[in-house]
Amino acid sequence: MTDALDVRRRRVLGESYRLFYRDPVHLVRGEGVWLYDASGRRYLDAYNNVPSVGHGNPRVAAAMAEQARRLNAHTRYLSDEIVDYGERLLGLFDDSLDRAVFACTGSEANDLAYRMAREFTGAAGAIVTANAYHGVTGEIAALSPSLTSELAPTARAVPAPDPRLGAQAGPRFAAGVRAAVDDLARHGLRPAMLIVDTVMSSDGIIPDPVGMLADAVRVVRDAGGLYVADEVQAGFGRLGDGLWGFDRHGLVPDVVTLGKPMGNGYPLAGVVTRSEITSAFGGRYRYFNTFGGSSVAAAVGSAVLSEIADRDLVASCREVGARLRDGLEELAARHDLIGDVRGAGLFVGVDVEAGGGPSGAAAQAVVDGLRDAGVLVSATGPASATLKIRPPLVFGTEHADLLVETLDTVLAGMTERTAD
Amino acid sequence: MTDALDVRRRRVLGESYRLFYRDPVHLVRGEGVWLYDASGRRYLDAYNNVPSVGHGNPRVAAAMAEQARRLNAHTRYLSDEIVDYGERLLGLFDDSLDRAVFACTGSEANDLAYRMAREFTGAAGAIVTANAYHGVTGEIAALSPSLTSELAPTARAVPAPDPRLGAQAGPRFAAGVRAAVDDLARHGLRPAMLIVDTVMSSDGIIPDPVGMLADAVRVVRDAGGLYVADEVQAGFGRLGDGLWGFDRHGLVPDVVTLGKPMGNGYPLAGVVTRSEITSAFGGRYRYFNTFGGSSVAAAVGSAVLSEIADRDLVASCREVGARLRDGLEELAARHDLIGDVRGAGLFVGVDVEAGGGPSGAAAQAVVDGLRDAGVLVSATGPASATLKIRPPLVFGTEHADLLVETLDTVLAGMTERTAD
Repeated sequence: MTDALDVRRRRVLGESYRLFYRDPVHLVRGEGVWLYDASGRRYLDAYNNVPSVGHGNPRVAAAMAEQARRLNAHTRYLSDEIVDYGERLLGLFDDSLDRAVFACTGSEANDLAYRMAREFTGAAGAIVTANAYHGVTGEIAALSPSLTSELAPTARAVPAPDPRLGAQAGPRFAAGVRAAVDDLARHGLRPAMLIVDTVMSSDGIIPDPVGMLADAVRVVRDAGGLYVADEVQAGFGRLGDGLWGFDRHGLVPDVVTLGKPMGNGYPLAGVVTRSEITSAFGGRYRYFNTFGGSSVAAAVGSAVLSEIADRDLVASCREVGARLRDGLEELAARHDLIGDVRGAGLFVGVDVEAGGGPSGAAAQAVVDGLRDAGVLVSATGPASATLKIRPPLVFGTEHADLLVETLDTVLAGMTERTAD
Repeated sequence: MTDALDVRRRRVLGESYRLFYRDPVHLVRGEGVWLYDASGRRYLDAYNNVPSVGHGNPRVAAAMAEQARRLNAHTRYLSDEIVDYGERLLGLFDDSLDRAVFACTGSEANDLAYRMAREFTGAAGAIVTANAYHGVTGEIAALSPSLTSELAPTARAVPAPDPRLGAQAGPRFAAGVRAAVDDLARHGLRPAMLIVDTVMSSDGIIPDPVGMLADAVRVVRDAGGLYVADEVQAGFGRLGDGLWGFDRHGLVPDVVTLGKPMGNGYPLAGVVTRSEITSAFGGRYRYFNTFGGSSVAAAVGSAVLSEIADRDLVASCREVGARLRDGLEELAARHDLIGDVRGAGLFVGVDVEAGGGPSGAAAQAVVDGLRDAGVLVSATGPASATLKIRPPLVFGTEHADLLVETLDTVLAGMTERTAD
């Protein structure tokens, strides 16, 4: 049945789709941190950041259904839901960030942020990290080295901060950004923005050292550009230390982009920025996103914020994440396959090494081994050699322990097979 | 309360937002073709094409809630919902259109179509109609003359077909496309695509003459480009003659883009095309849209298709639309303010004239007059002088009659005031 579904899927969906795992998982149900396949087997979800308040969250589903029955107005009508939600959302940011614009996906949010940055600065350049991913619209794919080798002529990719450099990671990153500004200038361009995924997920998950972004932000601002914080992955509490990743680095961005967990799976995304920026943009362009900020989107977004607050998920995420990283560090001490462990809250990267260096093949074997053992994770980073562990925020200590135990067993099995 | 909401809204939402109507409507509830404001007053919705199977549709809301409770998997896992929906959707197109890729908004669908067309053709040019609107991503906004005067260097805008030319409308449109192809060539460019909103909504609503697109499509194909049918507005039965606008014109597009009514308000959009095109694109690019084609999106999309089929909405749309246009023609004969009436099914444009020509100001007065009288429409076209009448497909004959009667009264009032 699962094989037959795979065949039907290939006949229907475009070839740009990819499936996870050597042996793809055929999902039929989800609840909290658990996913169930067609045979009734359950998997611990240690990967999906979108259902951050849990798969099948009843409060979110109820809010969605109730609002869908009552009203789903768009933003060209006055309606309470979007204003209530907008106020609530802006209340979670520094006072200088006083305007919200809503979209449906992180790609749309980043695309809009780039349009706004160009309009506000009058410049066209964009500086990104070396293996950045910011989305799939034409313009944003061309700012995403992890997707394409053909960056936009206006884009410059700079080395991501190197966590091994400690206190020098920030200055070194800033030096790369300065070189990019200089190179843009040699081509008659100025930077409109430095856009950074705060946790640098596709660069291999780099949450530390804290403060490492400040120097680079100063460089881009001095050159007239904006600092755009892509919080699509890091935002809404996942890093366990406030709601936003840039808070950890002591920064207030010019523009913040939001997505993935914002609607727990309902397509909701947005841009939060200063009124002088939305005003410059709005003076020239209407921006109407039919579904962005609809009544249902707002009701769902509000239910997600309530779940995060009422269940104290940021604190839980910090505690469970710390315990998870302790367990992983302990594995790293015992297993040669495991190198550096990095993370903040429930966003954790674990480098997999073989033959003296990062190994994408070994990481993929660990990912597939975990899947076979009932735990779902993935791999990321320039060589796809970093395990990406990013579970729903409702992940508890018992789930963290199960993940560590299972990984221990999988690694032991791999070492045995290699020794055979 | 409504005024206070407007003030709060301005303090929260970006300045690129616009509200409908001189006196904005504060909506609190919707049901079928009716919308209700905060004072309890009801309005006949003769404008919103998104809730095509009705505001607050219970079947759609139930499908959404049930699936959100059960599972909301994304496309990197195997799951039944997206394959079932994909097969069902493709079953509604010519056999040559055998692949679907899902996104969340029409903007994303058009953005992806342009990326695919460039990759498949190896060309970069895009030909659009003179007042086209295709979306708000950076690349697509730059192909939307109705949004911006700064088109992309690779874009060429050509005059939309002129319905007054009758049988000559098609050849004249094709001549414009040929001139655009020639001009692209003078700049070292070739066309990747001709993209046309099948009902040319922002060009003033131009459904006829039937067949008017064929010559132009031949021209672009001869030059190596694709014909992209933007069915975001025309699709899913609205034109009352099959499900797709291009069917009326006897064409099979290379790429079809879908959106707005596809999920009755749930953010669901997609690209339907040939496997050779998705294969060329997929050979170079992954395309992962986190929320696009999720289990909930697929369940909602499927419920919408069931509603359209089970309630025979295409036939109803044809009949009610014909009656509506008859009524409007009758008004045109009696009111100097009304010029040409164009339409197919429940997509109707009514030109408003004053002082011997199209009048955006008079159209806006009619739109505001209707709003005050409890009927919601808008205006479109190059001079915003065309009433845009585009109600949910569940609009019945009694609603069509009410719309015509109310418009009659509003026009009479305007004529009286002018005569005073």
